[in-house]
Amino acid sequence: MAEKAKKSSKLTPTRAENFPEWYQAVVKAADLAEMKHVRGCMVIRPWGLGMWEQIRRRFDEVIGELGVENVYFPLFIPLSYIQKEADHVAGFAKEMAVVTHHRLELDEAGQLVPAAPLNEPVVVRPTSETIIGESMKGWIDSYRDLPMLLNQWANVVRWEMRPRVFLRTTEFLWQEGHTAHETEAGALAESLQMHEVYRELAATWLAIPVIPGEKPASERFPGAERSFTIEAMMQDGKAVQAGTSHFLGQNFAKSADIAFSDRDGGRSLVWTTSWGISTRLVGAVVMVHGDDDGLRVPPLVAPSQVVLVPIARGGEDDARVLEACREMKRELETRSMKPGVTLRVRVDARDRRSVDRRWEWVRKGAPVVIEVGARDLDQGTVSAIRRDDLENRVEISIGDLSAALPALLEDIQASLLAQATTDLERRIRYDVVDLAGFEAHFEEPDAAFVVAPWCSSPECETVAADRWSVSIRCIPFDRAGEAGPCVICGVAGESAVWGRSY
Amino acid sequence: MAEKAKKSSKLTPTRAENFPEWYQAVVKAADLAEMKHVRGCMVIRPWGLGMWEQIRRRFDEVIGELGVENVYFPLFIPLSYIQKEADHVAGFAKEMAVVTHHRLELDEAGQLVPAAPLNEPVVVRPTSETIIGESMKGWIDSYRDLPMLLNQWANVVRWEMRPRVFLRTTEFLWQEGHTAHETEAGALAESLQMHEVYRELAATWLAIPVIPGEKPASERFPGAERSFTIEAMMQDGKAVQAGTSHFLGQNFAKSADIAFSDRDGGRSLVWTTSWGISTRLVGAVVMVHGDDDGLRVPPLVAPSQVVLVPIARGGEDDARVLEACREMKRELETRSMKPGVTLRVRVDARDRRSVDRRWEWVRKGAPVVIEVGARDLDQGTVSAIRRDDLENRVEISIGDLSAALPALLEDIQASLLAQATTDLERRIRYDVVDLAGFEAHFEEPDAAFVVAPWCSSPECETVAADRWSVSIRCIPFDRAGEAGPCVICGVAGESAVWGRSY
Repeated sequence: MAEKAKKSSKLTPTRAENFPEWYQAVVKAADLAEMKHVRGCMVIRPWGLGMWEQIRRRFDEVIGELGVENVYFPLFIPLSYIQKEADHVAGFAKEMAVVTHHRLELDEAGQLVPAAPLNEPVVVRPTSETIIGESMKGWIDSYRDLPMLLNQWANVVRWEMRPRVFLRTTEFLWQEGHTAHETEAGALAESLQMHEVYRELAATWLAIPVIPGEKPASERFPGAERSFTIEAMMQDGKAVQAGTSHFLGQNFAKSADIAFSDRDGGRSLVWTTSWGISTRLVGAVVMVHGDDDGLRVPPLVAPSQVVLVPIARGGEDDARVLEACREMKRELETRSMKPGVTLRVRVDARDRRSVDRRWEWVRKGAPVVIEVGARDLDQGTVSAIRRDDLENRVEISIGDLSAALPALLEDIQASLLAQATTDLERRIRYDVVDLAGFEAHFEEPDAAFVVAPWCSSPECETVAADRWSVSIRCIPFDRAGEAGPCVICGVAGESAVWGRSY
Repeated sequence: MAEKAKKSSKLTPTRAENFPEWYQAVVKAADLAEMKHVRGCMVIRPWGLGMWEQIRRRFDEVIGELGVENVYFPLFIPLSYIQKEADHVAGFAKEMAVVTHHRLELDEAGQLVPAAPLNEPVVVRPTSETIIGESMKGWIDSYRDLPMLLNQWANVVRWEMRPRVFLRTTEFLWQEGHTAHETEAGALAESLQMHEVYRELAATWLAIPVIPGEKPASERFPGAERSFTIEAMMQDGKAVQAGTSHFLGQNFAKSADIAFSDRDGGRSLVWTTSWGISTRLVGAVVMVHGDDDGLRVPPLVAPSQVVLVPIARGGEDDARVLEACREMKRELETRSMKPGVTLRVRVDARDRRSVDRRWEWVRKGAPVVIEVGARDLDQGTVSAIRRDDLENRVEISIGDLSAALPALLEDIQASLLAQATTDLERRIRYDVVDLAGFEAHFEEPDAAFVVAPWCSSPECETVAADRWSVSIRCIPFDRAGEAGPCVICGVAGESAVWGRSY
């Protein structure tokens, strides 16, 4: 009955043909970003950055309610700060951009060359524990100043030898939370709370189900006592670490000497945490929700949730159609999916064929696309394309549009989460119990996660890494108590999530 | 009748005693920022960053309505890009941070030193015309792709030899808009439109009256054909360039070869613009609105517009008072100063004497501070401190609070603008007509702007600069037609705004 939305050809290659190349194709077709200009660095285009801005807006709301305040620290960190924490040095030294000069000059050949060397070179921040610790020392005087809950939105740089757009880039955008507490229990609770915030953000806003758990020692943040992670499974079975929260103990408090007057009249060191999510989440959205037609963006983080495409025939109806679209936009923008955040609606009236515009928004993954022509206006009905079901258009009376859309978007949000959850639950393997089974499973290039015991020895991690490029993604919270023989060596151990990762 | 809010001592020094040191004292007392860690770089604290976040939120709204889309470009720019535009090189080469290595190693003495030199060094962006131009080239194919309206929020670095917090820092936060157009007229109109957006933002949101005009050639952005500016006058009579918008002609289009298929079937170069405001606006807010008690923040950009300070006596009333404050906050947060932006209300229940907390918010310049004790609850009335009038508390019935506050805040916003406007109009001089008068005026260290003709010669600019450190701030739009003898040399010229500047 309804005209099918799908007309265009699939992306080349499809997911089944070559998943990594399909990923690049979606990022390009959806105009999300380009890797250009400087090796490993991204140009993030409006549709990609818009998702990050929605994540940022929501995260700011949540942490604001938790009493966290935003700050901004210098991009540059003196070498002397980095050097204070030995694990930190070991973890980041190999990937740091170093500024050594503060001027350019033209040489004799007319080429620009560095001039005016710095007395002490500075690094471009790979993360800000050290410099924020140095400031906290000056701001924390007594227990009355604790907890201190800070966050910054920033760009960071980790020189990347094998970059992959969004997932692994030399420069990326992130938020980094940094908190200081009076007690060990307070800091641990904070790191677990933020870990749960990330899990909820991923599930509710990005429609990405994740496995929350703790990193093994080998995968901890450099300088952390404990690192908590949320691990998401991409459609090729590989993991993306989608957010991490670290309990730093007193390591950075010691190296920066962040002491305070405690309740007993003595001096104590604070306990600190840090936690972050980054633009790699945009890559995870692509790899979890994309299909062979392009991207599908969960409505809650879509820069435009509804795109109206007026059909222009070059006649007298054009102005009427365009004005009707604008009126629909105004009307829709009085409605909300979540309280306080009105619908984001775009009218795409560019001078291009409507079928091309429509198909561009399908590739970009706008949740709902509605072409509007003079005949639709006359009939009082439009047919909406919902991006999660291109086969069946939804007929909506124009008068009902603003009442119907919030529910339709909620339904799309829920359906994307349901699909991703089904995929994760269907593919994750709990029945791999020994080395033979492990080997058979991970011989497949798109092997999904295995949940199986680990004896806690680094040796067994090394075996899995060397032979199948498999690592322990986390010790999952919800199966942490399940014991059994290590899937690699057979010695008694506890449940771990094994998988390949980006 | 009402208790006076003012108790604490004035800042040291006062504005009259030493304006530059007073400025530093306010920035410190209001916890806005610190210059620390790396020379010329700021740590921006929550109260300072919060103002910038409000400016950002508002500016995003405005440019969103104008069809501008946010993007993010790499922090690093290859030297080869910078080198393409000669004026650009000349303007920025002396202040660029250069990344030459991408690794650190420990030397024999155990010190971290740069390792792994880059084949081609990169600079940390001082501004992004060159790199954005290189991308636009790939995105613009035909006139149908124009205008292209982009903006990015980013940190930029210009190595600063004489840093001053907010006003002149090595790293700062800003937005930079970059647009490409089919015609010269289109690009010029865009740059003038954004110039007007800045003027309106300064006046309406920051309560800062500015003089809009055009920069003389000597003060143009490196690579621009025309630069438009809004100039604000600080309380010591000096100027702050509060926002600039540049018509770049085809200079960057030529250097990056940004061509498109035009309507006549040929190839043409685009015409581009760029425009920016930065965290220096926070410094301007301090220097325009601060008084000897500290900062006064215009309500529309205040991170917290109303601060409720519950008085704790250590008795059974404390819980009741705290809960009453929280209830007032909930109630107030249903109200707005501007449509769509609900009031920002904070309950400051920290474990400190209420008089100290109250005074801290006065120093920070929260527009309205309300101490709430058990007696106030019993009487059903609170007395509010409005920051623009510390002498007279405002008695408000608790039941009327949420109805009264939006109007009270509007009134404070209007009164700050009125005071700044009066100050500007009172001090700006239109009656300086010759060199003797000019000399007499600018012998005063806190001399305000002079509006007087200029013959258009660089020589007269040099005289003013060398003898009195005075520059032409702009050729003002509203007096551009007034002619007369140049105030320096007597040759016929047109009106210019002369002044010292930060």
